[in-house]
Amino acid sequence: MTALEPLSTADFAAALYAHSERYWHNHPLHLRLHQGLLGEAELRSWIANRWYYQKWLPQKDAAVLANCPVPEVRRRWVRRILEQDGLAFGHGGNADWLALAEAAGLSVAEVVDERHVLPGVRFATDAYVQFARTRPWIEAVAASLTELFSPELMRERLGALHTHYSWIDPAGLRYFEQRPAVADADAAHAMELVTTYCTTRAQQDAAVAALSFKCDVLRAMLDAVEHTHLGASV
Amino acid sequence: MTALEPLSTADFAAALYAHSERYWHNHPLHLRLHQGLLGEAELRSWIANRWYYQKWLPQKDAAVLANCPVPEVRRRWVRRILEQDGLAFGHGGNADWLALAEAAGLSVAEVVDERHVLPGVRFATDAYVQFARTRPWIEAVAASLTELFSPELMRERLGALHTHYSWIDPAGLRYFEQRPAVADADAAHAMELVTTYCTTRAQQDAAVAALSFKCDVLRAMLDAVEHTHLGASV
Repeated sequence: MTALEPLSTADFAAALYAHSERYWHNHPLHLRLHQGLLGEAELRSWIANRWYYQKWLPQKDAAVLANCPVPEVRRRWVRRILEQDGLAFGHGGNADWLALAEAAGLSVAEVVDERHVLPGVRFATDAYVQFARTRPWIEAVAASLTELFSPELMRERLGALHTHYSWIDPAGLRYFEQRPAVADADAAHAMELVTTYCTTRAQQDAAVAALSFKCDVLRAMLDAVEHTHLGASV
Repeated sequence: MTALEPLSTADFAAALYAHSERYWHNHPLHLRLHQGLLGEAELRSWIANRWYYQKWLPQKDAAVLANCPVPEVRRRWVRRILEQDGLAFGHGGNADWLALAEAAGLSVAEVVDERHVLPGVRFATDAYVQFARTRPWIEAVAASLTELFSPELMRERLGALHTHYSWIDPAGLRYFEQRPAVADADAAHAMELVTTYCTTRAQQDAAVAALSFKCDVLRAMLDAVEHTHLGASV
């Protein structure tokens, strides 16, 4: 039995991009969010639960660094940590997410103490962090490729929040204003890494599986939030 | 049986500083290095073996980040990675170490392919990286406190290299010119963290044990290098 031939870069990229269908842009919760159908309680729950995912991202990205022996890769990847944590208190993606929470009527205290975080959100996020800690670094990079699909979703969301949720102070929407350009650049770098470092068919298959796993993580988070609010009045 | 009372900050700091006696400044190999008694082969061996430790530092520090849930700690600690890896190719502490290797007559290729790295150096360094990956982040911070003692040693070394090893191009000594100020600042931050976050006696004891372990790591590296050259002509 011989090992399968590697896919061409084009076919490999196509196999990765095919996961756009499994991305969480079309999850019912996101569809209702963008249609203006979420009540205040469910929207706040979504924000507070997503915080749990956001807050782990710097540590997830540090786990990739910790496993990566290539200085030039680390030198670019470390910027993800700087972007999320910010260079000073109150700056960076995670501070922007907390500003969104406050603009939506949550206190920072009740978000960061995680009282609203659902077990399903915790389990899904923890699985992603554990994946980044324990799998080869390039698979964790591949898992990050959901960012290929996120900028369009975030730009759409920004419009929807302005249009349908005018009770949220627009000053709190900075995350969705800043993030798409960062995600575009980060995703391009991750795609370059995956296509460069996954040279065998086994590595390519592992990268595709990692992206599929990540889609499961994201959808499981929304499933958990939506389940809690099913039947609740909107 | 009651838990022991925490040490006062002064007593805790004293217990940490007491490890200056176990630091590798007084290892016979370092003493001979500073006295000008190393032959070219042993000096090159020391440089090539120390590279293995140096190259792991960014990943060791990323492991601390990956385990640390405190954004303000990560925001300062991430600078260690930037300092070692540099902001661009050819910059940073590790590039400076490779420049030292070249100035001492080694090729970059023979250093980075690790052909000269001794098993004992590998085992000691790997133990340190594993420690940072698996122990609480504050213990890995405590282990880094050997840097309390390193600036003085490096300043002395810079003079010794200029004086006794004039066959090394002084342009290659940048590591020892740049590093002491960085190490001073990094050690002050680490000391602040350890005295802030180790509040129970058990945590204080674990921090002291971590620093003791780290002294063992460093000395074991030099033992391995020295053992290989014992009896060789200098």
